Amino acid sequence: MQKTGIASLGKFNLIKRLTDTIECTQPSTLKGPGDDAAVLHHEQTETILSTKLFLEGIHFDLTYTPLKHLGYKTVIAGISDIYAMNATPRQILLSTGLSKRFFVEDIDELYDGVKTACVRYNLDLVGSDVAPSMTGLAISITTTGEAPKEKIVYRSGGKKTDLLCLTGNLGAAYMGLQLLKREKQLFEGQPDKQPQLEGFEYILQRYLKPEARKDIIDTMAAINLIPTAMINLSDGLASDALHLCRQSQCGLRIYLERLPIASETFSIADEMHLDAVTAALNGGDDYELLFTAPISSYDILRREMQNIDIIGHLCDPAEGAFLVTPDNQAIELRAQGWK
Amino acid sequence: MQKTGIASLGKFNLIKRLTDTIECTQPSTLKGPGDDAAVLHHEQTETILSTKLFLEGIHFDLTYTPLKHLGYKTVIAGISDIYAMNATPRQILLSTGLSKRFFVEDIDELYDGVKTACVRYNLDLVGSDVAPSMTGLAISITTTGEAPKEKIVYRSGGKKTDLLCLTGNLGAAYMGLQLLKREKQLFEGQPDKQPQLEGFEYILQRYLKPEARKDIIDTMAAINLIPTAMINLSDGLASDALHLCRQSQCGLRIYLERLPIASETFSIADEMHLDAVTAALNGGDDYELLFTAPISSYDILRREMQNIDIIGHLCDPAEGAFLVTPDNQAIELRAQGWK
Repeated sequence: MQKTGIASLGKFNLIKRLTDTIECTQPSTLKGPGDDAAVLHHEQTETILSTKLFLEGIHFDLTYTPLKHLGYKTVIAGISDIYAMNATPRQILLSTGLSKRFFVEDIDELYDGVKTACVRYNLDLVGSDVAPSMTGLAISITTTGEAPKEKIVYRSGGKKTDLLCLTGNLGAAYMGLQLLKREKQLFEGQPDKQPQLEGFEYILQRYLKPEARKDIIDTMAAINLIPTAMINLSDGLASDALHLCRQSQCGLRIYLERLPIASETFSIADEMHLDAVTAALNGGDDYELLFTAPISSYDILRREMQNIDIIGHLCDPAEGAFLVTPDNQAIELRAQGWK
Repeated sequence: MQKTGIASLGKFNLIKRLTDTIECTQPSTLKGPGDDAAVLHHEQTETILSTKLFLEGIHFDLTYTPLKHLGYKTVIAGISDIYAMNATPRQILLSTGLSKRFFVEDIDELYDGVKTACVRYNLDLVGSDVAPSMTGLAISITTTGEAPKEKIVYRSGGKKTDLLCLTGNLGAAYMGLQLLKREKQLFEGQPDKQPQLEGFEYILQRYLKPEARKDIIDTMAAINLIPTAMINLSDGLASDALHLCRQSQCGLRIYLERLPIASETFSIADEMHLDAVTAALNGGDDYELLFTAPISSYDILRREMQNIDIIGHLCDPAEGAFLVTPDNQAIELRAQGWK
């Protein structure tokens, strides 16, 4: 198929093409794409706002990331921040910088993924901008949400004896990425070889097409549980747990044997001579939720939220933030550096 | 002075350094930087939301753009969209991608400019993210504002006989940029030569450190004038006027002799053998406001807003969108392409 140059279409026709078929369905969207700004009406709720920037070569590698998946994942990353405030995501705005090697059909694919996520999570795309880029692809996403004031959960509300709870499992996206990197290297050496990805569908999906934990937020609402503190796991458990406990002015204990790690994550780590626990602690890109709840909610957590793990607890700040191994060694938690 | 590497400080300490001294003062800011998302409370007003992406090599050239000015200008570009909705800007969120050649002190400078603009325009910086970049500097800004529903002005409200009004003058920023480009070229040929910028302070300021038209929005509020349609002039008068008249389902006449062009813009255009009118029509980066008002508001516009120009009028869509020269030639307006 002959692809269409962006210059031949022009900036405004491209934006029109990307947004024309979009229908805004959220009652809170007063004005969607097409003006200087979007207009939102959040009645008797607060407006939650987050922004993220994704750059080619740092956050994604297009040799193994399909553009449709990238569009989908961008939205997931954006709304995960909204869920982590115990709020409901409503609108997104997208700006993209496109280098010369991108054609109109490529951007269509990226937007296909974005729109698929919008349908799946009930979001309005209320703003789109495109601009040329001298280098690679740059994507900026702004996400809005709403929540009544009394339901919003900050990182800072944890108490000294609170339970530390985690959704899903850790390190899967990171190991999915390592697998893709390995296959890319092999492919570069022997271009006639097909990548060996069979049997690793789960970790690949966790990296390429993650989901946001809407289900958890819905369950919490249904059982009337409001966490004392919560954070979106995007930088890795170690970094994010440190943010939560520091902002709650608490210390922290995480028990190594409680860390949920999927069997696929273990087996590929084994095969690649990597440490699955390190992937779980520092991998990042998990988009799971880490939250705290009072000890008194132990029973309801066990009964109503069997898909979460209690991986530790907060403690006195003087006791520091440690990972405790089964043989009772305490390893101090550290945030990751600038990669 | 020895500069500090970003890796030695780390991502979270860098964000802390950039945002720690920031005090959020807007009553509508419930939660500023430091959580998964910001929380805003816009009572009995609508939330206005805009996002923009600025990429090195496309939107700015750091050989002649001081980082402090760039930070300032980024904020101006963001809030201009909010003013163009006849709303009051309140909060901004900033994400930056930083390549290896940037040091902590460079980002401090960028943020100095951002903070200066926040003080000048009474804005809260409620979110900051930094990430590495493989290439140049990337800056994404999200801007919020608020306005009562009945005061919001869209691009689509213009009527067939409305006056077309413009703030400030056109093409100055574009000619400022041409001057900077010329001096950069000369400098690259003869590095011992000092750039000749004296006498062109006005056009340089318009390019490097523009202001947003808060004064115009304030005046409109004071005299109780609500434009029928309005747009932020960022892509050039021709493109933006076309947006406004198409979205208002009208045609358009702009009279060439009515276009306000500063004398400095004329004289540098002359010196560089460029056409000042082309700069005025297609230059972009003006950050002026183009708006429409009913003929019946002619008197109040002349009396109370002497700093605006009535450059034309809307008309029946069948009459098309034309620039009319003094000798009555009609030149069809065209939007600019993908640069």
